[in-house]
Formats: sequence, structure tokens, C-alpha cells
Amino acid sequence: MEQRIQQRMRDKRLQSKIVSEETAASWIENGMTLGLSGFTRAGDAKAVPSALVEIARQKELKVNVYTGASLGSDIDRLMAEAGIVHKRLPFQADKTMRNEINNGDLLFVDQHLSHTAESIRQDVLAPIDYAIVEAVSITEDGTIIPSTSVGNSSIFAEKADAIIIELNLSQPESLEGLHDIYQLQDQGNREPIPLRNVDDRIGTEGIEVDVNKIKGVVVTNQVDSPSTIVPPDKETALMAEHLVDFLRKEKDSGRLPRNLAPLQSGIGSIANAVFHGLLESEFTDLEVYSEVLQDAVFDLMDAGKIRFASGCSITLSESKLDHVYQNLEKYSERLLLRPQEISNHPEIIRRLGLIAINTPLEVDIYGNVNSTHVHGTKMMNGIGGSGDFTRNARISIFATKSIAKNGDISSVVPFVSHVDHTEHDVDIIVTEQGFADLRGLAPRERVPMIIENCAHPMYRKQLYSYYNDACERGGQTPHILENAFWHTRFQKKGTMLEKDIQLT
Amino acid sequence: MEQRIQQRMRDKRLQSKIVSEETAASWIENGMTLGLSGFTRAGDAKAVPSALVEIARQKELKVNVYTGASLGSDIDRLMAEAGIVHKRLPFQADKTMRNEINNGDLLFVDQHLSHTAESIRQDVLAPIDYAIVEAVSITEDGTIIPSTSVGNSSIFAEKADAIIIELNLSQPESLEGLHDIYQLQDQGNREPIPLRNVDDRIGTEGIEVDVNKIKGVVVTNQVDSPSTIVPPDKETALMAEHLVDFLRKEKDSGRLPRNLAPLQSGIGSIANAVFHGLLESEFTDLEVYSEVLQDAVFDLMDAGKIRFASGCSITLSESKLDHVYQNLEKYSERLLLRPQEISNHPEIIRRLGLIAINTPLEVDIYGNVNSTHVHGTKMMNGIGGSGDFTRNARISIFATKSIAKNGDISSVVPFVSHVDHTEHDVDIIVTEQGFADLRGLAPRERVPMIIENCAHPMYRKQLYSYYNDACERGGQTPHILENAFWHTRFQKKGTMLEKDIQLT
Repeated sequence: MEQRIQQRMRDKRLQSKIVSEETAASWIENGMTLGLSGFTRAGDAKAVPSALVEIARQKELKVNVYTGASLGSDIDRLMAEAGIVHKRLPFQADKTMRNEINNGDLLFVDQHLSHTAESIRQDVLAPIDYAIVEAVSITEDGTIIPSTSVGNSSIFAEKADAIIIELNLSQPESLEGLHDIYQLQDQGNREPIPLRNVDDRIGTEGIEVDVNKIKGVVVTNQVDSPSTIVPPDKETALMAEHLVDFLRKEKDSGRLPRNLAPLQSGIGSIANAVFHGLLESEFTDLEVYSEVLQDAVFDLMDAGKIRFASGCSITLSESKLDHVYQNLEKYSERLLLRPQEISNHPEIIRRLGLIAINTPLEVDIYGNVNSTHVHGTKMMNGIGGSGDFTRNARISIFATKSIAKNGDISSVVPFVSHVDHTEHDVDIIVTEQGFADLRGLAPRERVPMIIENCAHPMYRKQLYSYYNDACERGGQTPHILENAFWHTRFQKKGTMLEKDIQLT
Repeated sequence: MEQRIQQRMRDKRLQSKIVSEETAASWIENGMTLGLSGFTRAGDAKAVPSALVEIARQKELKVNVYTGASLGSDIDRLMAEAGIVHKRLPFQADKTMRNEINNGDLLFVDQHLSHTAESIRQDVLAPIDYAIVEAVSITEDGTIIPSTSVGNSSIFAEKADAIIIELNLSQPESLEGLHDIYQLQDQGNREPIPLRNVDDRIGTEGIEVDVNKIKGVVVTNQVDSPSTIVPPDKETALMAEHLVDFLRKEKDSGRLPRNLAPLQSGIGSIANAVFHGLLESEFTDLEVYSEVLQDAVFDLMDAGKIRFASGCSITLSESKLDHVYQNLEKYSERLLLRPQEISNHPEIIRRLGLIAINTPLEVDIYGNVNSTHVHGTKMMNGIGGSGDFTRNARISIFATKSIAKNGDISSVVPFVSHVDHTEHDVDIIVTEQGFADLRGLAPRERVPMIIENCAHPMYRKQLYSYYNDACERGGQTPHILENAFWHTRFQKKGTMLEKDIQLT
């Protein structure tokens, strides 16, 4: 056996278990349920799922696929094209799979990312036959050291009938020591989670398993798919400015300390841009308690702005990846990767008092948020962790551009076409126009705040017109239900914009 | 001073602070913010708010009123009639106040009951000038012993500029020892809450305050308003049967232990009836971790079914009150009353793995729930604690009758007219028709389950017709937005029912 494999696979009992990805994939039978490692393209099982897609050309195969979050390496696309997925949860972000979902050909359970592990523990999902988990190494006693994400790997490994490890030689060995694996007991028999600060280490450095459950080890050598983040543009830069402006006001008023509160940021370009905004700011000693650690987190570390970052995956752009991997030992003192039910746990989110920053598809004039469904019906990616954080954060912020499709869609509407986050949970809305601070406000106080500070000027009159007409009918939350969905106008006329609005 | 007052007001420093309710009320100035004790009619401040309403006849007065939850003694009605409330939060249940709110004359912030204390701590609400708190006694060192509710009294007393105590001689002294007051530190400087079991005592027996902050003590003698629960009827009894049936299946499958998991039950007749259903069941050693402890909890204790109940208030019907008060010492070994941010805390709810049972106004075919807004606009009472529990429970259950207004309203609709609980958080729906277990199901799997098991037969064809037409358009969550709100048909035609539905 190659020396570099020996070095990474230190449990000698596993030497006889090295198999090809084809062999491992051949164990998977029709109707089984797989738990794959992988969170926002990072640390995903790559070889075995790809081999499985090949095998499916020869035999009838439908499986349930559970993951941490989205996969990379086109795995979701390949599986969707092959039509081998019966049920998928808790998150995906692939165009082909999205189409399958929206055609009704694939069952997608859009789950809070902290809930999957509990659902498995509570035995309300189909039980997992194989956990297929990428590792950077396996210790002398068979402990699995995950690679660039932890996600749901530890609960999958704990609960699966058998485990297949993808030992990925392309992942740097220096990832070892970066993980903090804390496994929760069953509800009703559970201690408080002893995490008081973002940098508290509370668990083990790897996933401890019964080594007899490890059925095979597949040696792989494929790097993570890079993130697809587009750089900040004029609007996202403005949003970042408004957000920093809000945080500064909180600090100046004494509501937040000098280094704010631990920050969570959703995935994607807007959230990344907003984090980049902190680069230009006066804030230092920042702390991050989030899911995905994206480029901006490392930029902020390089600039001495972030003291410590806790996440459950590291997802980087192509240009950033080399830099981070080469300096991993330097970063490792200021990083921890945890299981997603710990990174997203309500207990910790409330205790630490996080500032949660997420990206909606649309918001309404009362502060309800749609994060998932285009025009109320078609799934985009999924709610992800936005609900976990929003529901329990100290300050929950949603940042979006005020218009889309050159202005034919307003991101501020009378009534969102799907509700993922309710008015009760949304504190701050930010667009390139400004921010609306909704805390402590009744619905009728929120409306002018959102229209004036967040809606695009081209839609303000139209929003006021709707609201004024609705107020004629009264109510805590005035509405004209028959006109509430501007999405139907867009579907018929190609634009949400009405001409010649008369303000009553 | 009367002996029975001396006995209850054991801090001698306070003797000079005894004042009439009129004097205490005269201290309250226009524009002030009041924090009143009271949770679901229990332990509410009664005398000073009533006196305040009288004073308001002579002078300009508008105040903000924060409470635990709903008040009794017609206080909300009197305040609404006098027009003295500018902003009210986090919950109310009074008809007159509701009208004021829906007319837009009174600002109502419909807040999760666990959030109010955090909002005050975070300094995002107008600061509290006077905490007006009912007490059963005051100890030698000035510790305030609350009466039949804790609610938000401890945070109000901690943060208010000054405190007025209503020492209520009609409340039994044997309530002393029943409370467990645990005060949270600021976020970022907070320990795990050390509560592992429903009967864990983690705090003090009363509210410890700086005695100099106590500006006045008003001696009162008015009993709590009794609850207005109507007895179970045929439908609520059936709902209870279905719910017990569900719980039995969970136990039989090994998902839940023999004594289930700690139960939370919302307020009102349906929730009370459902709890009554457990009386006839085989379950024993049950535990309750809830907000309000209603009649049924005590019936279940009498029947030896409930081992221990933790709540934040005791609200009883007239007939039950005498019985409970006379046997309080017996019950007291099996009861604790906590601040509402502890009874409703996400950390505890998730750790204990509660079974949460709440009452919606309506549900939709995908499992979204409206708890607050009649036809999407008019406030009923408020979200209360239903969000706190639903969002973090082990199993979140919503129980409602399948129709209202003799069938002109279906409680199962294509799209709820307001969303308080999203599809991501709703596990089980119960009506008199049966129950739908939505756990682990994709939206398209949920629809037939909800229609067949929960919708009234008179609406099933119409619901299928909507859904089938929507599926033609596709999507993860198929909808026809222009027909989604059946409420507009009700508003025009007086019924949601369509004649001559053709199923496509």
C-alpha cells in the first residue's frame, strides 16, 4: 500500500477493506437510503455516488439521498439525470435536480438543516443503509476525520447500518484537528450543550464509530468543487454599506458591544458581499458562528478583523482555495468545524445571541419572508439554515436587491407568495435602498418603514396604493387578498409594475 | 396594620409604602410604559390599571402596556374603551381591544411570548417606567412572591425604573414555594440553562429586587377572572381520540417511551379537550412543560395520570378554582411556575423534546398554519407561545375542527391567509376527521394526507380540484395564486363552498 495512504489510514484493521468505488457502489440496492457527506459543495462524497450513477444504467435503482446540504462535483445533477433519487433532503442547489423537483418527479423535503439529525434520531425518516462519508484520514482507533465539512456526517455514521469512507488524498492532512464533533443524546436524556463561546471545543476531533460498521474504504483524489460566488456589484456593495451602518448605530447606542455579536451569514453572493463590507469597516475582534465559511471569512481573518470562526463547512472559490490550504495551519488556531446540528442549534443561537444575515427571494410590506419558492410554486434551493438562525437569533437580518429582472419584479411585495420566515421573526430588512428596523413595531408601523427604506422607488407608489386601499378594509394586517399576489400580474403581463397608479 | 397584611408583607421597610390604588395610578404619566403582571387572566395586576382608567377621564393619558399574555378582570377592555393604550404587546384576548387593534387605533405587536424579555434586555422596546406586579406575599428581604402567574413579571421588575406591588389577599398564601424564578444573563455572557427535567428547580422562590425600587404597595382583594373554557363537545372529543390514537402509535412503534414526552398545550377549549382525552387513555406518569396550566392538568393529576407539571400560570374555571385552591398543598409537590421565557425557551423545548399541541385558525394543504388572523387581516388574539413551542418541539401538533360557521368556512384551505407557522415546523394536523402525520413528507405527499385525513368531506373534492389544477402548472408546491385564497369567495358569497366541482 502506498505510503501516503498508510499515513492517512492509520487503523490497520481497515487495510483489507480498501475497495474500488465500483465495488462499494455495487453494494447499494434498489430502495435503500444513503446518507452522504457534503455541505455547500464541501467535503462531499464524490466517487461512490458517481459510480452509482454508472451502475444505474444497468439495473433498476431508486434511492433516498440525505446530505448535509448541497453537493458539489455535479453529483446532484448526475443523480437527477439518471433518475435514481426517490426522496432528497434537506437541501439541494442544482439546476437539473431543481427541474426534477418542480416537475414532481423527485420528492424533496425542504427541511431546517438542524432538524435532519433530530428526525433521524426520532426515527421518523427511512433508516439509513449506508453512510458514505469523505475523510481526510482515519486514526489508529478507527476514528473518521472529516474533510472540509462535517454537516450530518456524524449522525449518518452513528445511525447507518454500514459506513463507506471516501479517503480523499487531495484534501490537506492539516485539516486534522480542525473538527469538533459533539454528539447529542436522545431528547429526554440530554445534557445542556456546554458551548458558551464560539471557540469552545466541546467534543472530539473525529467521528468515533464501531470499526466493524466500516464496510469499505475507497481512496479518492478529487478536489472539492469551487464555490460559484460572483464578486460584489454596485448594489451588493450598497447593501453592505447599509448593513454596516445599522451595526454601527447599534454599537453607538450601546445595544451591541464594540465587536458586535457572533455573526452568521447565509450562503451566496449577497451574503458574501455583505461580509466583505465589514472589511472596510472599523470593526475588529469579530466572531463568526455560522454554517458555511466562505471566502470573505478568510479575507476578514487576513485583515485581522475576525478573531475566531466556527462553522460546519469551508467552501471557497477557486482563487481562494490554494491560499487557504497553504495557510491552513495558521488559520487552524482560529477555526472550528462542527456538526450542522451544533452550528445551527437553537440552544446555542439563542445563548450566544447571534446576528443572523440571510438572503430572501422576496419580502412583504409586513416583514414576512420567502426564501425558497419562485412565484410561490417553484423550488429554488431550500430553506437551508436560514430558519434555524432567524428563529432564534438576537438580530435576524434579510438582505436582498429591491428589484429583479430589470425591475419587472419587485422584491418587496404586498404578500409574499410563500412564507418561510414570519413577521414574528424578521428584525431587519436591507436592500440597496437602505434598511428597515422592524423590531418592536406593529404591522402598520412596519409598512412605511419598509416601503420608504427598502422598496425600489419605481414600486413605492404602487405599494402605498395597495396599502392605502387595504387600510380602508381595516385589520391588524390590512390586505386586499384578491390583489395581494403581484406574482399573477407578472405571470400574465411579464411585469409586476402597474402604470398610472392613483394614490387614494 | 392588619395582621394578615403583616403576615404577607414581611419586609418591614415596605410598611410605609402602602398606598391606595388611586395614589399609585396617579404616578403614571402620559407617554409612560407599563409592565403588568398577568398571563391568561391569572395573577394580573388589577387595582392600579383600573384606577388608571378612572384617572384617564380627567387627564390626557396614553401609555404602552406590556404584559405576560392576556389579562383578566376586563382590564384590556377598560383600557381599550378609555383609549389609553398606545402600544400593546405581546398578547391580548379581549373583544373590545381586538376591535381597536383592527380599526388601527391601537398598535399591537404580536410577539412570541419568549421574545418579550429578550427584547427588553436588548433595549429595543421603549423602556419600562413602572412594573406593576401582583404578589401573594413579600419576604423579609423584599423578595416578591408572585401569585398565580409569573409571566414576564421578573424581567419587568428587573428592568423597570420603579415597581408597584399589588399585594392580593385573595390569593392563597400556599402559592408561596410554587415559583422557580431563573433570570437569564445578557446574551454573550450566558450560561447554559441548567434544567434537564420538568421538575428541576433552578432558581429562587421569588423575584429578588432592589427594595428601593419598590415605590408603592397596594393591598387588593380581588380574585382572578375564571377561565372561559367551554366543555368538550362531540368534535373536540373526537379530536382528542385521534390525538391519543396518534400518541399510542408512536409509543407502540417505540418512537416514544411509555409515558410519552413532556406535553405542552395551548390555551383554549380545544387544547383543554385534547388534554381531557388523555384522562380516558392508558397513559400514566405524564409530564407537562407548558405555559398555562388549565383545568384538565389538575383533573389529570387527580386521576394519577400526570406526575409533574411545569407552567408559567394557573388559569382555572370557576368550578375548578375552589377545588385547586383547597388542595394546593397537595398539588404543590407536583407543580412549578416559571418565567415565561423559561417555560417557552427554545433551549429547553428542544432539549426536553416536547410534544406541543396548539390550536390554529386554519391550515393549508401543505401544512402551513394561521394562528392569528381571521381572513388574513383581522387579529384574533395573537401567536402567543405557539411559535416558541412549534419551532423547537420534538413533535408539533395543531388541532382544529375541520369546518366553521356551519360549513361555510373550511379550516383546511389551499393557502392560509396568514402564516404563523411554516410547513417546515408543522408535524401533525388533527381534526375531528382524523390526523395527518406530515413528518418526512414532501409537499406533494402531504396534500392527499391532509385532504383525506383532516378536511371535512364536504370540501375534499373542491380541495382536490384546486390541487389537481395546480399540479398542471407544476412546482414543488403547486398553486394557482389567483384562486389560492378561498377567503375572498367567503367574503363575496358568504361561503367557501363551490357548487358542482368537476375533478380534472
